[in-house]
Amino acid sequence: MNLRAVEWRGTPEAGGLRFLDQTLLPRRTLYRECRTLRSVWRAIRTLQIRGAPVIGVAAAYGVWLGARARRNVSAAALRHAVRRAVGALASARPTAVNLFWALDRMRDLVDRSHERDPRALRQALFHEADAICASDRETCRRIGVHGARLLRDGAAVLTHCNAGALATAGIGTALAAVYVATDQGKSVRVFADETRPVLQGARLTAWELARAGIDVTLLPDVAAATLLAQRKVDCVIVGADRVAANGDFANKIGTLGVATLARVHGVPFYVAAPLSSFDPDTPDGRRIPIEERDGREVTEIRGVRIAPRGVKTFNPAFDVTPAACVTAFVTEAGVLRPPFARAIRAARARARAQALRPAVSASR
Amino acid sequence: MNLRAVEWRGTPEAGGLRFLDQTLLPRRTLYRECRTLRSVWRAIRTLQIRGAPVIGVAAAYGVWLGARARRNVSAAALRHAVRRAVGALASARPTAVNLFWALDRMRDLVDRSHERDPRALRQALFHEADAICASDRETCRRIGVHGARLLRDGAAVLTHCNAGALATAGIGTALAAVYVATDQGKSVRVFADETRPVLQGARLTAWELARAGIDVTLLPDVAAATLLAQRKVDCVIVGADRVAANGDFANKIGTLGVATLARVHGVPFYVAAPLSSFDPDTPDGRRIPIEERDGREVTEIRGVRIAPRGVKTFNPAFDVTPAACVTAFVTEAGVLRPPFARAIRAARARARAQALRPAVSASR
Repeated sequence: MNLRAVEWRGTPEAGGLRFLDQTLLPRRTLYRECRTLRSVWRAIRTLQIRGAPVIGVAAAYGVWLGARARRNVSAAALRHAVRRAVGALASARPTAVNLFWALDRMRDLVDRSHERDPRALRQALFHEADAICASDRETCRRIGVHGARLLRDGAAVLTHCNAGALATAGIGTALAAVYVATDQGKSVRVFADETRPVLQGARLTAWELARAGIDVTLLPDVAAATLLAQRKVDCVIVGADRVAANGDFANKIGTLGVATLARVHGVPFYVAAPLSSFDPDTPDGRRIPIEERDGREVTEIRGVRIAPRGVKTFNPAFDVTPAACVTAFVTEAGVLRPPFARAIRAARARARAQALRPAVSASR
Repeated sequence: MNLRAVEWRGTPEAGGLRFLDQTLLPRRTLYRECRTLRSVWRAIRTLQIRGAPVIGVAAAYGVWLGARARRNVSAAALRHAVRRAVGALASARPTAVNLFWALDRMRDLVDRSHERDPRALRQALFHEADAICASDRETCRRIGVHGARLLRDGAAVLTHCNAGALATAGIGTALAAVYVATDQGKSVRVFADETRPVLQGARLTAWELARAGIDVTLLPDVAAATLLAQRKVDCVIVGADRVAANGDFANKIGTLGVATLARVHGVPFYVAAPLSSFDPDTPDGRRIPIEERDGREVTEIRGVRIAPRGVKTFNPAFDVTPAACVTAFVTEAGVLRPPFARAIRAARARARAQALRPAVSASR
């Protein structure tokens, strides 16, 4: 897995954020570079960069780019630029909490540091964004190691949307388990829901798994019920955009259906996510804001119209799955089992103690 | 509802089967005409004509076209041509039982009739196809009347695939309930699943409902779980391609997921289908043959590639929903409630007694 969904290229002061444009896959593999705050905002908003963890990483670099634009200014002016950048990027997308977590880390840095030398503060800001990126890579690796233990040799896994290398700075969350298990010599097959309307499963998951030599079968979302009812998969693994304190979680639209069917048919359902996706300030799923996106995602596919002109649409980007459907969460701090409220609190406390730098303050 | 999905045009000996090409909707409204058995087979196979009841009607006329091609032959030669036509059309699609039901009616006619005059036999064959078409129209109307009773004024209905006027010779099955309720002055809103991979919901259901002035909202299939979990719909109504003797039924892929979610969330789930879709020779859902279709339906949308080249696919055209998920069947003979095996047997017996000509012999 040598894929880099985002990566800083060049020096802090002259370089830029290189990313793989996910709207063009699988037909074109085009890397773009952001050199301004605004271009990062746009890349997140238009889904060129998507996937909860990688959105957080990109936003951190975006804050740096916003600050970097202020040349030869005081530390106070830099702090002001950081706060403005944080405010601007927070509007890019509402559901994935990693965005706010990363922005909080950047803001905390300027709030807490007493650095008066603007050069040193600039270095500290870039270093923080870089640390968020590096820790995401390490987090993915750990999630992969914990997740791989859940997969037997010969396992068939169903996944929805893309929680792979394309969704993170590292090897992914849900797919990290598959990559690590495969590296360990296990044979693992993946069934990938195509994930309408934006087709992240067809365009991204099938692409990155095939590229990594993993056996992948693509299916329309509607066929997942048959796979689960016939027990043709051993388990389901998905990512998460935000996990509430009680274990309810938001993820790509369609996750709720898969989770409910898995529960009805007794198929284990795992959610792989970094602790930065866990939001202690959201008590349960009802409080998670759900983004509604443009109806053209439903009525057109790559510019081709597939529905009558002017038809009304219902197009929420995410849904909320109750904790009761989840068998376990796979985090960098281990596999969390019910009761989730307690397990999540304990994992966060443990991670803090180990100075893994998890979401110390995810409030906003 | 003045839409005619199929219709015989002209005299029996010189006319043809006119149909709306459903692969081009909603972008083009193109009527084509079949004048040969082979062209009917191809239209059914390629989904230009699709929807269980209308497949049966088209196949009946297809048998007539196969017989018609034998000019100036004996009654025995005509009988032979009919049996060959029946055999050929039976291979067009495997799941919808209406196809076999209609073919059986045509074959029964030549098996039972002792007519020696080829002209009289020709007339009888065309008359039988015409009777199948006329009875499908009347059946739809009755299903609509029974189904409309289940819909309150202001109801919101979720449907999957297309079980409307486009799927029958009349006003549809599932959508017949909506059309009749609307005609009765009730306000009914419909949520239409887009129904990947062939998008019958987006292309056909949204199109025919909008054309009829019905309030319709299109959604990706994956969003139906949210609608059901939030109880934003009063009920679900779908059609069926084959109902087994115990009430298990096959319908468009994705129906099983919707039905399971409806059951979990306590939303009534209705299946609207003519008695010709009920197959007494199929004891339960496990015996229903499920068609697997070309993976390009998943990897391409209208010629636009949406997945990596060469990816494996899982693309069953139908799934089987257990009877336990069904609140009631809506048939031309009334609303059937559990226990279904008994209710179905009674409805068929009643229909036979009333000489409604249901599936007297659906064996093959």
